Amino acid sequence: MSAADTAPVTEGAAPAAPTATATPTDVAPAAASDADAATDARWLARTVELAVENVAAGGGPFGALIVRGGELVAEGQNRVTANLDPTAHAEVVAIRAACQVVGDFSLAGATLYTSCEPCPLCLSAALWARVDRVVYAADRHDAARGGFDDLEFYELFGRDRSTWELPVVAARPDDATAPFDAWLAHDHRTDY
Amino acid sequence: MSAADTAPVTEGAAPAAPTATATPTDVAPAAASDADAATDARWLARTVELAVENVAAGGGPFGALIVRGGELVAEGQNRVTANLDPTAHAEVVAIRAACQVVGDFSLAGATLYTSCEPCPLCLSAALWARVDRVVYAADRHDAARGGFDDLEFYELFGRDRSTWELPVVAARPDDATAPFDAWLAHDHRTDY
Repeated sequence: MSAADTAPVTEGAAPAAPTATATPTDVAPAAASDADAATDARWLARTVELAVENVAAGGGPFGALIVRGGELVAEGQNRVTANLDPTAHAEVVAIRAACQVVGDFSLAGATLYTSCEPCPLCLSAALWARVDRVVYAADRHDAARGGFDDLEFYELFGRDRSTWELPVVAARPDDATAPFDAWLAHDHRTDY
Repeated sequence: MSAADTAPVTEGAAPAAPTATATPTDVAPAAASDADAATDARWLARTVELAVENVAAGGGPFGALIVRGGELVAEGQNRVTANLDPTAHAEVVAIRAACQVVGDFSLAGATLYTSCEPCPLCLSAALWARVDRVVYAADRHDAARGGFDDLEFYELFGRDRSTWELPVVAARPDDATAPFDAWLAHDHRTDY
């Protein structure tokens, strides 16, 4: 566990978004109140509520939500088994829904709250969504006790792929870069 | 780059799926032909074609598909900007579509082919989807030349989170484990 995982939440601690390609000029910065511990506690309590409700409804024990400028943008509950979608983790559901609400593929300026530490899928989704902060309640070890593979997948990401049971194979054809060549030659591409 | 990344594809090289919770008893094992280099080349050529077509249509330069038992299950193209969905990477789109086709949240026995090395989001999606193999054409360095953050995000996953610009904060409330407690107490939960 990193130092950041256990650092106390301090008001105004949210630094600038780490985005390289997002264009945050037209979005509000994270409100100072978003970084307030009491505010965090209130939103986290809602994610725990969403997670518990989802279990009662037959789903996985995970809830998440997106807040920007002190306002709720969208909520998500785990829908993996309900929707037959292995990517429908609560955080991914919340991010996708929030993007529809704001009409943008960037959530720069937003905070992702989640009932459990995001797994590598969800943390990657948070990075691609360009959120400013992630705040979570339970962690990967709690998830492991629940029978989930978050901890195992984090350990995989820390190891050389040659040690994985899942083969991830480069089979580079001559035209491997053709899509990027076409992309860079395209006058009207939308970067993200 | 790991040894596995550059290992030649050899017939019959696909080991058993690394799944801990999937129940592969009712799915076909990966066909030996799926691991054949010529077969890989044919499916990869299609992913490159999908990626190039997607650029011409205004989308990102990525294509992917899912094969099981020698048969195409579903294809995917990057839809991040088109669908305002930062998680709609080609691999995620293909995995989600394939799960709908087969009516299961597990793709055990399947191979994910993709025009570019899966980013951490997509590799995690492949792990959660329990595919047996991943085969890719271009790599994270090609993606970086195209202006994409795959390489940067892989580097983040290799570093302690305390060094990230994105704060990922544990703010553990007293009821942090309530969702998992409810989950473990639930008689009719569907594991995944």
